Amino acid sequence: MKQRLLVDMDGVLADIYAQLIECEYQDLGIRQSIEKMNGTSEVDTFKNALKYIYADGFFRNLPVMDGSVEILRQLNEKYELFIVTAAMEFPNSLIDKFYWLEEHFPFIHWKQIVMCGSKTVVKGDIMIDDHFKNLDYFDGKGLLFTQPHNLSGNDRNHTRVNSWYDVANILL
Amino acid sequence: MKQRLLVDMDGVLADIYAQLIECEYQDLGIRQSIEKMNGTSEVDTFKNALKYIYADGFFRNLPVMDGSVEILRQLNEKYELFIVTAAMEFPNSLIDKFYWLEEHFPFIHWKQIVMCGSKTVVKGDIMIDDHFKNLDYFDGKGLLFTQPHNLSGNDRNHTRVNSWYDVANILL
Repeated sequence: MKQRLLVDMDGVLADIYAQLIECEYQDLGIRQSIEKMNGTSEVDTFKNALKYIYADGFFRNLPVMDGSVEILRQLNEKYELFIVTAAMEFPNSLIDKFYWLEEHFPFIHWKQIVMCGSKTVVKGDIMIDDHFKNLDYFDGKGLLFTQPHNLSGNDRNHTRVNSWYDVANILL
Repeated sequence: MKQRLLVDMDGVLADIYAQLIECEYQDLGIRQSIEKMNGTSEVDTFKNALKYIYADGFFRNLPVMDGSVEILRQLNEKYELFIVTAAMEFPNSLIDKFYWLEEHFPFIHWKQIVMCGSKTVVKGDIMIDDHFKNLDYFDGKGLLFTQPHNLSGNDRNHTRVNSWYDVANILL
């Protein structure tokens, strides 16, 4: 039986920081360097983060994380894969997230998508996520996907991955 | 620790059949009697079911199942409650379902909502659902909420409930 793999969207498949940097540049003419953002949340890093996130189309136009499409395609063969995204905080993102996945990851069936509030309700063997709050409550193996906001945290029991190529090395 | 209770929307909190009967009456001038619909799916019972379901607003305007609001409010105190709805087949329903819940069940926090494709990915102690396909893969206690389409099925290992008052008798 295949192991069940749960994959997050924001900050794992979708490059939230790249989009926020671009939004801030368009809005304020400032282009922050991602190397200088270690350890603070998006809301602390970008003064108008919530304005950008709530704007129409924010989630529909997110850049795809480098390497994720081809590696997820292979993972989808090897594992029982689910995309699990905590989308309910931003209800207007629900439909954008659905069509974003359909566009960039067309091999993911709608039966494999979970949009939730709390990830404590899902079960699986492996979870790839950029938030300690999700991995810490998961009773399988956790892969912590590096993002600026999680660099200051203790890795605890999770295996840190810095890119989709790291994910491939571990899971493929 | 509270037991985790998973509650379906369509056919459990929301009265899909009442809405379909009304849609068909508006569309074709026919008003089918719910007593005569035992054992066939919605799509077999209503000739134009998919047309109604895909129409704008179908999921936003569903009638609320009798007794569900007050009983769910009490269940929400006693259990760790999640609303789990297989919404991904109809992506345009996602936002409608969110705001329908917010309107009729305002005590449900967004963290308690799960919109998925397959319910095999959620874990809990008790599930209330009107579909065998969901209850049969659930490893907790299943309550089968009576709807016309499930009347011909064998109840198997699930406890059949005919109304929210039956649910209250068992769970409260």
